[in-house]
Amino acid sequence: MTSRTPSIPMRQRVEEYINTLQEEIVTAFETFDPQAPLFKRDSWVRAQGGIGKSCVFASPADDGATISPSAHQTVLEKAGVNISIVHGTLPPPAIKQMRADHNSMPLPDRPEGLPFFAAGLSLVIHPRNPHAPTCHANYRYFEITEPLNGSDPEEDQPKVLAWWFGGGSDLTPSYLYEEDAVHFHSTIKNACDKHGAQLYPTFKKWCDEYFWIPHRGESRGVGGLFFDDLNEGPHLRIPAPASEVKRPVTPDEIFAFVKDLGDAFVPSYLPILKIRHSISYTPHERRWQLIRRGRYVEFNLVYDRGTKFGLMTPGARIESILMSLPETARWEYMTDMGAEGTEEGRLLTVLKEPRAWVS
Amino acid sequence: MTSRTPSIPMRQRVEEYINTLQEEIVTAFETFDPQAPLFKRDSWVRAQGGIGKSCVFASPADDGATISPSAHQTVLEKAGVNISIVHGTLPPPAIKQMRADHNSMPLPDRPEGLPFFAAGLSLVIHPRNPHAPTCHANYRYFEITEPLNGSDPEEDQPKVLAWWFGGGSDLTPSYLYEEDAVHFHSTIKNACDKHGAQLYPTFKKWCDEYFWIPHRGESRGVGGLFFDDLNEGPHLRIPAPASEVKRPVTPDEIFAFVKDLGDAFVPSYLPILKIRHSISYTPHERRWQLIRRGRYVEFNLVYDRGTKFGLMTPGARIESILMSLPETARWEYMTDMGAEGTEEGRLLTVLKEPRAWVS
Repeated sequence: MTSRTPSIPMRQRVEEYINTLQEEIVTAFETFDPQAPLFKRDSWVRAQGGIGKSCVFASPADDGATISPSAHQTVLEKAGVNISIVHGTLPPPAIKQMRADHNSMPLPDRPEGLPFFAAGLSLVIHPRNPHAPTCHANYRYFEITEPLNGSDPEEDQPKVLAWWFGGGSDLTPSYLYEEDAVHFHSTIKNACDKHGAQLYPTFKKWCDEYFWIPHRGESRGVGGLFFDDLNEGPHLRIPAPASEVKRPVTPDEIFAFVKDLGDAFVPSYLPILKIRHSISYTPHERRWQLIRRGRYVEFNLVYDRGTKFGLMTPGARIESILMSLPETARWEYMTDMGAEGTEEGRLLTVLKEPRAWVS
Repeated sequence: MTSRTPSIPMRQRVEEYINTLQEEIVTAFETFDPQAPLFKRDSWVRAQGGIGKSCVFASPADDGATISPSAHQTVLEKAGVNISIVHGTLPPPAIKQMRADHNSMPLPDRPEGLPFFAAGLSLVIHPRNPHAPTCHANYRYFEITEPLNGSDPEEDQPKVLAWWFGGGSDLTPSYLYEEDAVHFHSTIKNACDKHGAQLYPTFKKWCDEYFWIPHRGESRGVGGLFFDDLNEGPHLRIPAPASEVKRPVTPDEIFAFVKDLGDAFVPSYLPILKIRHSISYTPHERRWQLIRRGRYVEFNLVYDRGTKFGLMTPGARIESILMSLPETARWEYMTDMGAEGTEEGRLLTVLKEPRAWVS
């Protein structure tokens, strides 16, 4: 399946992959809108251990005139495609939290803590046009190892106590184009299916649950895929005994699955952006888009596990964590938008009851 | 001190007071900007028990043109002055949470739950002009009683197990005018001082702690007052033995203190708005205001106890809870605004290290 020798550690293979994927994704957007400024690339070093590279697109700063049409309308309004490769020690309380969040991982108690390694790519694309949906994706690898006692960490391969992959992607339109949702889900489903027929339905459902906004009684968008804790052990969400269900099990198999998903990102989203970015729109539609972005902010700040964890982490890079927030968001008290029988209301109907987009 | 007979229950006296205060505050803003639309008043009934009245100001819906100057510039951009008088039963887990949040309150375990009553006024004023600060205030009364066994709840006076007042107000400028902060704090301090010299410094400090945004390392604004759990028992924040410190202790004394604070709201804030609302401003200043409003959203959604509690409460009126959010907010990745030596940077310096505005 691959020409890599098995002696290359998974952390290094993941790091290489997300580096390449980041560049591919950013280039795809830059090529699509050559008149727009390039993504701003900046690399950073985490004092506690690790590196990262942020590629961020920001509208040219027009000092406040973000809503009224300006001379050059870039396709994107705000976007970030970030990777991070970090390592450190989980102190005992963090091990406890980790055990609670990933309850299939057997993690020993160690008063001195446990070394961890995490590598991931995370992206959010907020286009300017209200007819073009926002898109988010994330692919990540996590490893917890035995402490190395005094020897050179560059030399030794520490014993891996637990490892898993997680990830997914989801689509958040302001206006509902059913064919966009179908395209997005079909592309992801195709990437999943060759690794096991259970994967798409299981992780699609997980996505609908994860991106639910309880206080609004609505979903953040039209869903996609969400998964976590994928490793060689039994998985709580994949119900039948592993022997009866084809699914990726070995590190190689799971990594191949995650790579297929990562590679599917551009084909799942860019064709939608190409159709929608040039549809003419009214101030009314722009206003609704900003209200929907308010809901996006609500989800990310109130519920998103990654954001909450990041905000609570001392020394975390706040700018990278909050990169996901839209450039502008809007809150109206008892808004009159979204009534039944309108285009806005049609979206709300779907958000209130997540739909099966492909069978 | 007052002509009220002591036989009128406190819950009724508070309800009357916040009704009057709401009307006074709303009228003050309406009188100040007579060209603007009136506040929209709507009363609501809580299915689980209780009533409320929301008075909300919204900019005329210009369908998206919120940033570019429009024909009539209202002084306010978005504002809400809400009261609610609710009652119900705290189930055992809520009693537990209540005990944790208000650890000076001795609350018995009751498998059938405990009746509660809560009455409060809550307001947020977001002016349009970036030179005019946002202001928030809240005054509330809470009571927990013995269950009434079968008798008519309208007839009996249930035994009060615990009661307390809480409240405060705080100012959130986008641009720093030191004299505004001094005026705001002085007015509040004057209202406090006749009830005890300890109150202002104790509750000013509490405010600085409460409105701290840890992930930004900055305060939401220039502070004001915050207090909770004020009743006849010892108070964890007022250090010396009660006998040595003059402070309001009886229900009448504490209610008088809270009323003085409520009555001080308009004089603490409206004179500032009067000076600042007509200063001419640039798109650059507007942009900074929207970035600061992003921080306001971050505080309210991530940290504010009332908002978090509200969002988690089934059947809560979400529109009232999120009324506090600004009409528009903005997030820039690695913004270039706020640098040292600029007016924006001058504000940040004060937010990073809360200052004593009056001595």
